[in-house]
Amino acid sequence: MQDILERKNIDFAFFHNPDSAKINPNIAYFSGYNGLGALVIPKRKMPFLLTPKMEYEKAKKSMVKMAYEIDKKRFFDCAKQIIRKNRLRVKNIAIDSINFNLNFYRQFKKEFKKAKTKDISLDCLKLRRIKTNKEKQIIKKAFSYGNKILDKAIRNFIEFKTESGVSGFLEYETKKLGFDVSFPPIVASGSNASMPHHEPKNVKLKDGFCVIDFGIKYKGYCTDCTRTIYIGKPSNKEKDIYNFLLSIQKNTIRNIKINDNCGKIYENCVKSLGKYSKYFIHGLGHGVGVEIHELPNLSLGSKDKIMESMIFTIEPGIYLPKKFGIRIEDTILMENKPIVLTKAPKDLLIV
Amino acid sequence: MQDILERKNIDFAFFHNPDSAKINPNIAYFSGYNGLGALVIPKRKMPFLLTPKMEYEKAKKSMVKMAYEIDKKRFFDCAKQIIRKNRLRVKNIAIDSINFNLNFYRQFKKEFKKAKTKDISLDCLKLRRIKTNKEKQIIKKAFSYGNKILDKAIRNFIEFKTESGVSGFLEYETKKLGFDVSFPPIVASGSNASMPHHEPKNVKLKDGFCVIDFGIKYKGYCTDCTRTIYIGKPSNKEKDIYNFLLSIQKNTIRNIKINDNCGKIYENCVKSLGKYSKYFIHGLGHGVGVEIHELPNLSLGSKDKIMESMIFTIEPGIYLPKKFGIRIEDTILMENKPIVLTKAPKDLLIV
Repeated sequence: MQDILERKNIDFAFFHNPDSAKINPNIAYFSGYNGLGALVIPKRKMPFLLTPKMEYEKAKKSMVKMAYEIDKKRFFDCAKQIIRKNRLRVKNIAIDSINFNLNFYRQFKKEFKKAKTKDISLDCLKLRRIKTNKEKQIIKKAFSYGNKILDKAIRNFIEFKTESGVSGFLEYETKKLGFDVSFPPIVASGSNASMPHHEPKNVKLKDGFCVIDFGIKYKGYCTDCTRTIYIGKPSNKEKDIYNFLLSIQKNTIRNIKINDNCGKIYENCVKSLGKYSKYFIHGLGHGVGVEIHELPNLSLGSKDKIMESMIFTIEPGIYLPKKFGIRIEDTILMENKPIVLTKAPKDLLIV
Repeated sequence: MQDILERKNIDFAFFHNPDSAKINPNIAYFSGYNGLGALVIPKRKMPFLLTPKMEYEKAKKSMVKMAYEIDKKRFFDCAKQIIRKNRLRVKNIAIDSINFNLNFYRQFKKEFKKAKTKDISLDCLKLRRIKTNKEKQIIKKAFSYGNKILDKAIRNFIEFKTESGVSGFLEYETKKLGFDVSFPPIVASGSNASMPHHEPKNVKLKDGFCVIDFGIKYKGYCTDCTRTIYIGKPSNKEKDIYNFLLSIQKNTIRNIKINDNCGKIYENCVKSLGKYSKYFIHGLGHGVGVEIHELPNLSLGSKDKIMESMIFTIEPGIYLPKKFGIRIEDTILMENKPIVLTKAPKDLLIV
């Protein structure tokens, strides 16, 4: 980040999180801190956090060792004072327009009247899409935990009565290990599976395909995996559709090479889906990191390229409205060839 | 909302959620839809949702019955076409600057070049702070569930070994009923309790005060409750501090009247904390609704007034850095007098 600031002649980057119930992914990425407040990264000097009193102890335990307590009511007065104290020039400030809300931005502009602001949201996304060795280590560990939990749920599937029973189990196992889920698990049975983002309900698991989409957050990094199992006795046609999708998913992964165009990977997948392509109603995949959705973007028209050390999902699906849904999702680490981080079996499991 | 648009001579309000992993609270409030896309509320005509294909089925099940599928890649082209089709004038558009990110706003301004945008974020917050009878019904039901779950955890407390064991149990019980938590539960034992936003770890529960802060989300509405229990044998001094805080918390609630100034309520509480006031390091309370933090704001300098049908927390705390923490939080529904919605016992529970 400091190289980028240097190159763009920016005095410091200013990241902000207005809400303790939310996380600013770039603050999390650069500092490991996930609370309320702001992160300042000067071009050359040490970065520091601005946090309310109640988060100060947490902030000092982050990767950015330097934190200042600030009075929330006098946020800008305090921030400006600390910036002066650190002898930072206030002429060119980088901000992140994706995680800056318009309301805060307007206040910010009023307070830093003479400064020019420059958007570096894309620079941050681009930094984050290539994982460092340290990140890869953490992420591999994250998947080793995530894989075990999903595996346990699938092996014990016969014991679950309801969709929310399954999702509750997944969360409980995650929490017991002291981790968080990366998103509320999706468990969608019967016709519910035709909605890719169905929220599990306290309803009896229905016969038919059941989509289970689950990930954990470990040391700030997300995992993501979807399996579809079958409750009851599948017809031959259902088995065929599942195996058809599975072969496409495997093929897509097998064929991924460095420098591939992501829009093209999506297109090829759609092409192989043939008459089912109109029932594939979302993107093929997305990067995974501190956020569950980041770059690269593997969907229609994407110009992203596959690069070494990217981590992303491959998740084709077939959804027949009000009938059924199937999705098979792996997360891939791209080295000289694609390494599959998600380990749960993919052959159709019938329970 | 339409009355406000009428009064301000606005053609329509445009709310946007860029990320399926997030919720736009105003879209959730007005429509019940919590997915990706946009909500358009015209001054006079019927409101409608703009959603990607994969969320379309979900959108049609929302309170806003009207939804249009849009192509994410051509978001603005599609949106403008639908707005034209609905014969909406595009001269004055209301937006919500708190939930509009700067990046989206810049695109929006480019696409609706001739339109004037007007910020209605505060109007939305003000609408949301007064609960309708229907909302009160839902929220009371939410608390009846939330209370039961917290009660169950506290009664079984002896069986827990770790902080994350407690928080995992709370989440699991919530999920089993098909609901979500309103935020990741806080379970902070021993010196961890001195951090108001401590994240539960997979560590043994330590002797001393243990803060448990928990809420659920039921039909889109949040609950919020904190209890502090004692693990081991408290000294007389510890019991005294707890009872001192408890009496202040109860008194604060008892004294709340319609038209009270929220900043003043906070000040009175601080005053009664006496020598402990410097260890009270957060606000006294906040509104609760579709978001866990909304208006009114009961903290230093707040100009908000208590009004009938507001729902808000009262949660004083005492935090000795690196030593211990105590917080007692109830959620109040303001009728002609304060009604306490949180039912867990408040006398110091020793386990």
